[in-house]
Formats: sequence, C-alpha cells, structure tokens
Amino acid sequence: MEVDKVVCLPRLSRVAVCGGTHGNELSGVYLVRELLKEEKKVREKKEEDEQEQPVSVLMVLGNPWATQQCRRFVNTDLNRCFTHAALNGPLSDMAPYEMIRSRELNAILGPKGSPEAVDLVCDLHNTTANMGLCLIAYSDCDWICLHIFRHLQRKMPDIPMRYIHFDVSKKESYSLDSVGKHGFAMEIGPQPHGVVRSNIYTAMKSGVQHTLDWVRFFNSGTIFEGGFVDVFTMVKHIDYPRDSETRNIAAAIHPQLQDRDFCLLRPEDPLFQTFSGETLRYKGKEPLYPFFINECAYYEKGIAVSLARKRRVMIPAVRVQTEQEQEQQANEQGFASEEEE
Amino acid sequence: MEVDKVVCLPRLSRVAVCGGTHGNELSGVYLVRELLKEEKKVREKKEEDEQEQPVSVLMVLGNPWATQQCRRFVNTDLNRCFTHAALNGPLSDMAPYEMIRSRELNAILGPKGSPEAVDLVCDLHNTTANMGLCLIAYSDCDWICLHIFRHLQRKMPDIPMRYIHFDVSKKESYSLDSVGKHGFAMEIGPQPHGVVRSNIYTAMKSGVQHTLDWVRFFNSGTIFEGGFVDVFTMVKHIDYPRDSETRNIAAAIHPQLQDRDFCLLRPEDPLFQTFSGETLRYKGKEPLYPFFINECAYYEKGIAVSLARKRRVMIPAVRVQTEQEQEQQANEQGFASEEEE
Repeated sequence: MEVDKVVCLPRLSRVAVCGGTHGNELSGVYLVRELLKEEKKVREKKEEDEQEQPVSVLMVLGNPWATQQCRRFVNTDLNRCFTHAALNGPLSDMAPYEMIRSRELNAILGPKGSPEAVDLVCDLHNTTANMGLCLIAYSDCDWICLHIFRHLQRKMPDIPMRYIHFDVSKKESYSLDSVGKHGFAMEIGPQPHGVVRSNIYTAMKSGVQHTLDWVRFFNSGTIFEGGFVDVFTMVKHIDYPRDSETRNIAAAIHPQLQDRDFCLLRPEDPLFQTFSGETLRYKGKEPLYPFFINECAYYEKGIAVSLARKRRVMIPAVRVQTEQEQEQQANEQGFASEEEE
Repeated sequence: MEVDKVVCLPRLSRVAVCGGTHGNELSGVYLVRELLKEEKKVREKKEEDEQEQPVSVLMVLGNPWATQQCRRFVNTDLNRCFTHAALNGPLSDMAPYEMIRSRELNAILGPKGSPEAVDLVCDLHNTTANMGLCLIAYSDCDWICLHIFRHLQRKMPDIPMRYIHFDVSKKESYSLDSVGKHGFAMEIGPQPHGVVRSNIYTAMKSGVQHTLDWVRFFNSGTIFEGGFVDVFTMVKHIDYPRDSETRNIAAAIHPQLQDRDFCLLRPEDPLFQTFSGETLRYKGKEPLYPFFINECAYYEKGIAVSLARKRRVMIPAVRVQTEQEQEQQANEQGFASEEEE
C-alpha cells in the first residue's frame, strides 16, 4: 500500500444505530429511545426550516420483546442469528422468536450482502467487563470502521478505547452489525446488565455522535489521513474450571486478573481463584491480551475470558468517491456482474 | 440501660446460612455450595475423630429453581414471601412457586415466631450498589445481630461495613432472615447479578466465618463488652423520574451520586441525570444517607435509591445464659404463656 494514496470509497448514505439487541444492556436501549425522541423534535423543526438531512440515520430497537422483559433474549441469543444459514434456511412454525426477529431486521437493514443493505450498522452493547469502549468488527481492513475508530480515539481521549477483530468470514459472521455493508458493535463497560450508569450512557452517546459526525464529514468530502491502529485479534476463549459432575463453575476470575482487560497476560500469571481459595495459573505459552474478563452473559457460553493478539495495522487515507467515480464504479460493477453471469 | 450490666441471652444452638434466595446473586450461591462441600469433608473427618460439633449450622439454598435459571426469581420475589400473612394464608393450586417454597423454608427453619425456629438466620445477598458489607435487620436492639456486626467490623477492617435497620414489625417482616429468632441479610456489593467476583466472594466467606466464630465464642461463655454502633434506619425510597405515558425511566442516577452509598446527600445535591443530559437535584429538606444506589433489582420495584437516618446506638455487654438461667427462664416463660391462656 502506498502511504500517499487516498483510497476513494462509496458514500455512506444510510446508517443504522441499533440498541437493545440484548434486552438487558440498557445504555443502548435508553440511548436509542432518546435519539428517537430527539429525531422526532429535529424532524418537526426541519419541516419548518426545510433543510435537507445530510445522512439518513435509522434508529432501531433490536429485540423489543427481550427489552420489555429486561432479559438478554427470550428464546435464543438474537446476536447469533445473522449467519447466512440462519437468515436463509427453512423456518418452522416453532422457530425461536429471535430467529423470526433476525429476518425482520435483515429485511429492514439488509438483505445482508446485497447492494440494498444499509451502508453502516452501529450496534450498541454493554459488558460487565472493564473494557472501556471497544469497536468489535469482523474485518481488520475495513477502512471505514478503522477510520471511525481513530476519530473516536481522538475525540474521546478520556475513555480507554480498543478495536477488536473477530476473524470470521462474512458468511459465517453472526451478529446484527454484519447485516450492513460496514458494521461494528460498540461495546462499553463495565456496567451490570439490567442497570444504566450515567457515565457509561454518556460515553455511548458521545461515541454515537462522533460516529455520525465522521460519516457526515466523510460524505461532505473531507480527506482523512492514513496512520496506524492497534488491532486486537481474538485468538481463543478460556472457560471456567468446572465440577466434572455438576458442570457448575469451580472458580472465579482471579482478583489479580479481574478488571485488567487488555493488560498482557503472561504464562503462569494468576487466572482463577477456586472457591476453596486456590490460585490457578495461565498455562498458555504465548503472552496474550485478555478481554471480556468475567462477562456475565458468557458464563452460559463457557467463556471466562477471551484472549487476543495485538497487531499494528496501517490504514490508508480515505475520502468519499465523487459522483463521477461512483458512476464509473457502478458501471464497472455492472459489467463485472454481467460477466459473472 | 446500665452500662455495667451484662445482658444474658439464650444459647444459639442452631444457625442457618442461606444463599441463593435470589438466584442470580452468585456469591451466596457458590459460598453455600462450597460450605456444603467443606461440611461433608469435616463430617467424614469428625466421624473418625468422634468430636462433637459446638453449634449446628444448616446450609440452605433458598431458591434452587431460580438459581438453576440464574434469575432473581421464577414467579415472584421469594424474599418478600415470609410475612405472617404469606406463610399462613390459604394457598391455591395456582400459587407462585416462591409462595410454596417460602412455606418449605419456614418448615425447615421456622416456624417463624415459634420456639422451634432456628436461633439465627444469616441470608446471603449481593447488590450492584457500592455498599461494601451491610447487615440488614428489622431491629435496632437485637443485641445478637449488633454484636455480630461489631465483631465483623473488628475482624474485617478493610471492607466498609454498615448496619441497616428496616423498621418493620416482626409480623410484617417479609424476608427469609425473619424466620429465625435472630436474623439478618448479609448484603455485599458491588457485584453485577449473574456474576461472581473473587473479592466479593472472599469478603462474604470471611463474613460468614467470623459470624460463626462469634456464635461459637458466645456459646462457650465469652463476655462481649458493650459499646456503640452506628445504625442506618431506612426512612424512604426515591423512584426514578419516569415518562408519564410509557412509565419508562427518564433519567439515571447522577454520576456525582453513583457509587457514593452512605455519603451524606444534602438538599439540592445532584440526584439524577436525564437521558438528555439535564441534572435533577435532591429536593428533600433533611440531609440523609443514600444506599442501594442504582440497585439492578429495584428498577421494577420503583426504587432508584433508599435514604437512611444515622443514629448511634449503645449496646450492652452480653454473654450466654448458664444452663441454670436458661431453665429458670424457660420455667418463667412457661408460667407466662399459661397465664396468657
């Protein structure tokens, strides 16, 4: 990649901000409700002013039924229902609520992988882990997501911020944000599920505002300089030690590891403390970065902590395509898909 | 009350330690399971040694069904099902699971208010609020509970500790700990529900061990000196501001109040921050001590924060009654109840 080259990318005309994909992660729930209220006021005002809106922002409550019950989900985890197979396979009358809801959302925001899909999905999440603000995406070379991340880092210097990469193919990607042409989960913690903390809510609100600002700057032709981003690529999960008979957990995260998300975990560092007081150590051979340490929702998924490798990624300068470039690309793609046929 | 007088109280022969009365408050769940395991080992060892146990300790999992599902409760809050009316009224076939379970527990640990009830119930709870370790009881003159509290304070100087008093009559008292002759909830936080944190688990374990130690010291004749205890008596609850139509909350606890449990709240101090960013202030006329600030389970109960008045209570020296004194008291009570009839 040439450092001086400016990569030209299509305009981001339609953005979706989603909350309540997990019904007990309350910052996103209350933020989406608040943004809907504000949008209504702005729309009423706009009608008087007759200004045009520079970008269409769709606010969506992911799992309204689970939100109503303040539970993560009703039948199954909605945020695992957006694989190609789950969205396109046969659907029985007895399908879990979330399997139906994921298709509704795919119809509103997608279809996933199609030209009709929204340009960017920002899906709001909370974690009980001490992770600060993280963008979680399936790509380590989606310049849009990486540039938004850098913008947030600059605009919100007071909150620890990381970019997490789950190395999963587009087809196998399972979360709501995978429905957009670009997408990420904005994950903020620590906040107990079922609780809203002002500081976490406010950080999320700023994160969303700066994301939308970046999209507007981008669409209006701003050139964003290239640079470097630290990317944490998920390598593996570690489960809790469990009782061989009951499968109940037999230990908690060690007090020396608790709340130390993204602090390097080295071989032989304390990992767990059993309920009888014994220390269990990390037996891996490679030092890795722990995250999602003691996340509430992952007990049932068999994840006590996730581990990542850190890598510095160079990102190019970007700007929006001119209308002419866009037409040209559309034509080329047209020819390409005709050729494919 | 004469300061020099030593109050003589009946022996505490039977103690119950309960966890999982709320199925997602995990420190108590894992602690009771661990104590049951340890007890089994001790029992096996004791059978060899043929030692006698100085006090009978009953370990009980309060709500096993809710615990299995990692939920606070299945149908209704078990820890509100121990009023005289709930335990003794008619019970339909359609009764909530917890209304049936409360009677089972009353049969094991009570009957509430009877001479057969266990001498002390220590019921283990967690809160998402930053409350440290609290004993919560219905009496501000139960010398057993207050002496145990002082003992814990001395033995665990590193954890903030308070004694909370709910001024409710024995008959109206609603929680599991009210089934014992003496009883308290041991409430520890902050810990998200559905999560176990090593530091909180370890504090609870120490709290229980020191409680049982105190009971053994007491039973073996130790005289505990009198002194003073700060008692926080609950005065009132404050609900979240709510949307008049939807009843959804319209604000979160203000960041300047969040995590400041037991720090005096004065008139005009910030209380809430609305989701649009406005500060709402405390409009009460009396400075009071906030606690259960932003407790997860209280959103549905309409409690954003509870407020208490602090008072210094003088507690007398206590010792266990001699066998002679105990017989004498039993005789007197026998006459008394005959006279009542």
